[in-house]
Amino acid sequence: MEVTLKFGSFEKSGSKFIGIINGEKIEEIKGDIFTEKYDRTGNFYDISELKILPPVTPSSMLALAKNYGSHLQGEEPPKQPEPFFKTISSIAAHNDEIIIPKDSEKVDAESELVVVIGKLAKNVSQDKAYDHIFGYTCGNDVSARDWQKGDKSWWRAKSSDSFSPIGPCIETNINPENLQITGKVNGNIVQSCNTSEMIWSIPKTIEFITKYVTLFPGDCIFTGTSGTAGQISPGDLVEIEIEGIGNLVNRCV
Amino acid sequence: MEVTLKFGSFEKSGSKFIGIINGEKIEEIKGDIFTEKYDRTGNFYDISELKILPPVTPSSMLALAKNYGSHLQGEEPPKQPEPFFKTISSIAAHNDEIIIPKDSEKVDAESELVVVIGKLAKNVSQDKAYDHIFGYTCGNDVSARDWQKGDKSWWRAKSSDSFSPIGPCIETNINPENLQITGKVNGNIVQSCNTSEMIWSIPKTIEFITKYVTLFPGDCIFTGTSGTAGQISPGDLVEIEIEGIGNLVNRCV
Repeated sequence: MEVTLKFGSFEKSGSKFIGIINGEKIEEIKGDIFTEKYDRTGNFYDISELKILPPVTPSSMLALAKNYGSHLQGEEPPKQPEPFFKTISSIAAHNDEIIIPKDSEKVDAESELVVVIGKLAKNVSQDKAYDHIFGYTCGNDVSARDWQKGDKSWWRAKSSDSFSPIGPCIETNINPENLQITGKVNGNIVQSCNTSEMIWSIPKTIEFITKYVTLFPGDCIFTGTSGTAGQISPGDLVEIEIEGIGNLVNRCV
Repeated sequence: MEVTLKFGSFEKSGSKFIGIINGEKIEEIKGDIFTEKYDRTGNFYDISELKILPPVTPSSMLALAKNYGSHLQGEEPPKQPEPFFKTISSIAAHNDEIIIPKDSEKVDAESELVVVIGKLAKNVSQDKAYDHIFGYTCGNDVSARDWQKGDKSWWRAKSSDSFSPIGPCIETNINPENLQITGKVNGNIVQSCNTSEMIWSIPKTIEFITKYVTLFPGDCIFTGTSGTAGQISPGDLVEIEIEGIGNLVNRCV
């Protein structure tokens, strides 16, 4: 039986490192997690002494529009995966603040499973897609609804600074096709779904995307949100919990 | 009088370096061009012995939709700059091939002036915008028109692999507000405009973007295309020439 293996990125006294998470203990590792060429250093830290960083630094991030039936709001299901880009400048870590822009009228949190690519992926067929995945993390596809409707593209609607919290860790050994996702605002459940409800599966999505766009180790795909997302305002505490992965927590300011 | 100063990125025998371009001669430099903390090494190369790389590696790239009156095709001018993202996975260098996807029916080349950011830019007012610009290069915002119309976002329409040629160099000392841009396919002029025709000026665009999205040194903004762009097919030679900067050349396959 393979054991669960969670990776994260951390900072202590200004220096950054990658670690393997074991409950409240983090063991520092050196090397490249994607090629699995790394060494365990034997340096252990309590999670309470560390700042948690975004678990990965992608070169590109994509997200899927309309990938849960319950989020379609009367529209037809898409005939193909419908990705859009989110920028790495919009990434926030676990416990970082989500900045609600003063000039947007409605900002929502969207709870999503995020795929982290492990091996360069170009023209990958769906039956080989899992070979190119490193693991999974929690993501919040923060969305300014008025800009999403009014602008020609979703650049600031989906990628204003702090609009892409990811973390707290990457789980590498999990079946992503049957995971419960729970979104909470101030402790109240506002979203609840299971990844089995996705319209376009992860392998089919990777096949479609990599026909056109090369994905690199560390690149992320947000796999879509369900139902009606929860509106968020300054002061709100947002939590996105995915079964077997963890709980991504961010305060809005 | 300040002299013109052109920077580029190069490769020789597998090693990469930044250089200052003086006609056909390249002088290798060491250090950081954005902070101007670099040393001239005195190592000179002939341009013919080098592979030209993309002049910069951005963390994000944006491009402007509908920023020339002649490209509006009857639509109203936008009430604000209308940026969208292009991914760094889509960057191609001078002389690299543009891959025309087999399953797109119409691919166009768009000749554009590209702004290269030099200093971190967040909430930059238009009167300070030029302080945050490092220089300018030529860009081709390759566009698959059928996907641009049919998909919910312009991800593959504007960022399929090789869809963002930039280069051949960055010119740091030039007035970007009055430059002639000429686009050619197989030697025939298909686009001709002047940057003075932009609807949203570069400073106003930077003010608007950085209200929401932080830009980092090396990040690029494609400033829009004019008129009707030239359709391109496998075998075509595409050239984008901007007065005072250079000529970006790519063959389609």
